[in-house]
Amino acid sequence: MKKKASLEEAQRLLLEQAVTVGEYRVPLAAAAGKVLSQNVFAPMKLPPFDRSPLDGYAMRAIDIRQASVAKPVALRVVEEVRAGFVASQIVKSGCAVKIMTGAPIPAGADVVIPFEEVEYSANVVYIEEVYASGSNIVYAGEDVAKGELVARKGTVVTPALLGLLAALGVEPIPVYKSINVALLSTGDELVEPPHPLEPGEIYNSNLHSLRAYCQMLGAKTVVQNTASDEEEAITDRLQEALSQADLVVTTGGVSVGDYDLLPVALKRLGAKVLFQGLALKPGSPAMAAVFQGKPILALSGNPAAALIVFELLGMPLLKQMLGRKTVLPQRFSATLADDFSKSSSQRRFVRVCLEQQGTQMYAKLVGSQSNGALQSMAACNALLDVPEGSGPLPAGCVLEAVLTSRFV
Amino acid sequence: MKKKASLEEAQRLLLEQAVTVGEYRVPLAAAAGKVLSQNVFAPMKLPPFDRSPLDGYAMRAIDIRQASVAKPVALRVVEEVRAGFVASQIVKSGCAVKIMTGAPIPAGADVVIPFEEVEYSANVVYIEEVYASGSNIVYAGEDVAKGELVARKGTVVTPALLGLLAALGVEPIPVYKSINVALLSTGDELVEPPHPLEPGEIYNSNLHSLRAYCQMLGAKTVVQNTASDEEEAITDRLQEALSQADLVVTTGGVSVGDYDLLPVALKRLGAKVLFQGLALKPGSPAMAAVFQGKPILALSGNPAAALIVFELLGMPLLKQMLGRKTVLPQRFSATLADDFSKSSSQRRFVRVCLEQQGTQMYAKLVGSQSNGALQSMAACNALLDVPEGSGPLPAGCVLEAVLTSRFV
Repeated sequence: MKKKASLEEAQRLLLEQAVTVGEYRVPLAAAAGKVLSQNVFAPMKLPPFDRSPLDGYAMRAIDIRQASVAKPVALRVVEEVRAGFVASQIVKSGCAVKIMTGAPIPAGADVVIPFEEVEYSANVVYIEEVYASGSNIVYAGEDVAKGELVARKGTVVTPALLGLLAALGVEPIPVYKSINVALLSTGDELVEPPHPLEPGEIYNSNLHSLRAYCQMLGAKTVVQNTASDEEEAITDRLQEALSQADLVVTTGGVSVGDYDLLPVALKRLGAKVLFQGLALKPGSPAMAAVFQGKPILALSGNPAAALIVFELLGMPLLKQMLGRKTVLPQRFSATLADDFSKSSSQRRFVRVCLEQQGTQMYAKLVGSQSNGALQSMAACNALLDVPEGSGPLPAGCVLEAVLTSRFV
Repeated sequence: MKKKASLEEAQRLLLEQAVTVGEYRVPLAAAAGKVLSQNVFAPMKLPPFDRSPLDGYAMRAIDIRQASVAKPVALRVVEEVRAGFVASQIVKSGCAVKIMTGAPIPAGADVVIPFEEVEYSANVVYIEEVYASGSNIVYAGEDVAKGELVARKGTVVTPALLGLLAALGVEPIPVYKSINVALLSTGDELVEPPHPLEPGEIYNSNLHSLRAYCQMLGAKTVVQNTASDEEEAITDRLQEALSQADLVVTTGGVSVGDYDLLPVALKRLGAKVLFQGLALKPGSPAMAAVFQGKPILALSGNPAAALIVFELLGMPLLKQMLGRKTVLPQRFSATLADDFSKSSSQRRFVRVCLEQQGTQMYAKLVGSQSNGALQSMAACNALLDVPEGSGPLPAGCVLEAVLTSRFV
C-alpha cells in the first residue's frame, strides 16, 4: 500500500491544484466578504486636503508668536467655513477663520485653535497662548499617499477595508468570482432529514456541514443526489458533479472495505490521484484527486473525521480557489489544561476549546474524540495537533493547535 | 455638561434596549450563520443504534474467550451486513457476521474484530486473540442521549452544529428573524463614490463600512439619503429611518460644534437619550438614544472613531438584537510589542495586530492612531484597551485587547 501523505504534503498537493475562476467588479454595496482580485493603489490621497480635526479658529501661527495670558493677541474673524465648504479668501495677517471639524484649512492659515482655548467677543478672537505652525491640522495624504498600495490582491474585504476603498473613491471593486462546489454523499445508510429513519439508517449530516462551510466562505454549492454504494452509481455522480462544479467534495466510500468504492470510481474515471490516505487521525482514509484541472477531495463518512479533514484541507483549498492569499489554518501554541490519556502512534487532531487565562492560552478537551462524535465537533474552537508517537499527555504540556471555522 | 458614560455603562444601557424581532423556522440549507431561537433537545440518540466503527466480523465475545494463536477459534460466517442494512438473524454461538463500517451490530453479537486481525477462508473466520465484550462497538447514544440539550438558544449555527442538528433529524431549524438596520450619514461634505469630489468634499466611507458590518452579521440594511447639516433635514431623516428599521445607526453631527445637530434632532424627536459622550478615545462624542423601543446609535463622523465605537458598542447591540447570547467582544491579554509614546488622560483604544510568538500573545501597533485614519483600521485585528491616566507605555507591558471584526 502507498505511503500515507502527511498533512503538509496533502495541503501542498491540493493547493497546487487550487486556481481561481475569474474576476469581476462589484459595487461597494456587494463587496463585503469578497476577495480582492487586484492590488489596489490609492487613486488620490487621504485626507484629500488639509483639514481641521476639531471646531475652532484657523489663523497664521506667526500672528500669535507673542501671545500670552497677559497680552492676548486679537484677531478679526472674517469668515466661517464648515465641512463640505471652502473659505472664500486667503487668511491674512490679523485675521482668523472660524472652522468646523472636517473643513479644509483656508489658504494662508497654518494653525487651528479649538473653541475652548480662546475667548470670543464681537467678531474678535483673543489668543492667550503660542501654538506652533501645524498645530491641529491633519495634512492631506497623512493617512494615505496618492499611488500608495493600500490593499493587496487576495485580501478579504472587511468592513474597515471597504471603508478605506470607499474613502478613496474606488468603486466598483475588483474581486474574484465565487466558485461552484459540488457536494456528493455516498452511502446506502444515508437519509435526508426529517424523513423517518428505517433500522440501520442515519441522517446525512456531512452534506449539511459542508454546504454551510461553503456558504460561509462565499462559495456556491451544487448538491448531488446521494450515491448508493455501487461503483457505477458513484462514477456517474462523480461525472455529473465534475460537469457542474469547479471542485468536488465527497463523503464516504474511502475506507478499505468491500463497499468503499470511491477510489475505484476515481480511477475508472481517469482522475489523477494526488494522495490516498492521510498520516493523521481522525480522517486517515481521506484522498484527493484531480480530473481535467478540477480537484476532488474525498472525505471519510464519519462526521467528525470528515469535518476535521475539511478544516485542515478543504478550507485552505476553498479559500485559495476563492482567491485568498492566507489560506492555512491559524496556529496557536497552547498549554494542555487536562490530561489526555490516549497514546498516539499516528499524528492526531484533538477537539479542544482554546481559552486564555492570564496571558497563557489553554486548550481544554471537549467531550468524545471518537471519529463519529459530532457534539464535541460543534463545541470545539480548535484542533490540538498531537505529534505522532506521543504517549499520554499530561496537563501542562505545550502543543500547537489550529483554529477551526474561521471564515474571515 | 453631563458626565460621559464608561464603555461598560454604555454597553449596559444599549443592551438593555436590544431585543430580538421574532423567530421562524428555516430549512437546514438556509440555517448557516443564523442564531438558534430555541434550546434544541435531541429528539433521538446518536448514533441511533449500536454500530460498527470499522470493517470486520461481529460475534459473541463468549465464543472466543479461549482463542489463542496456538488454538484459534473458528466461526462460521453466516451473513454480511453493510451500512444501511440490518442483519436478518441473531448471531448464534459458533457464528459470525461480516460487518461493514457504519452497519448496525447484529443482535446476539457483542464484539467486532477488524478484517486485518483475523484469518478468513471458505466462509470461516479464525480468531487468534481474546477480545472483551464491547470491543469495537460504538453504542447507541454514545455521542448524544435522547432528550439531551444539544444546543442553547442564542448559539450561532456553525457548520459543525448544523451537522449535529441534521444528524438528529432536526429540520427545519428554529432561528431568530434578522433585523433591519437603518444607516444614516450626516454631513454636507459627504459624496458617494465614484462621483467626482469638489474642493472640501470627501467620500462617505462610514456608510460602506457599517453596511458591511451589518451584512456580515446577517442583518439587513436600509440606507437613508445623506442628511445635510440642518436640524430639520436630520430630524426628517431620523424619523424616516425609525419608521423603516429596528435600529438606527448614524454617523456625524455629534460633536459640540455649531453644526453638530444630531443631539438637537434626537431631543426634538422626543427620543430618550441613553448616554451622550463616551469616556474613551477615539469616538468620545458618540451618543445613544431610544425612541419607541428602537435604539439609535449615533457615531462620530471620523472614520476610525466611528468604526472603533461600532466594534465596541454597535456589534454587541446588533448581535443581541439578532438573538446571540455571546455579544461582547472577546478580550485577550497581550504584551505590548512596541513603545506607545502617547499619554492617555482618557481611556484609549489603540489599533493593534495581535500575534502569538511562542506561547505569548503580542500586540503590535499598526500605523496612525488618528481619529480619521482608515488605513490602520483596515490593518488591525484588535484594539488595545489603554486605561485612563496611563503615561507612555513601554514595550513589554501587559494590557488587554479586544478582537475586532468577529462575525461568527
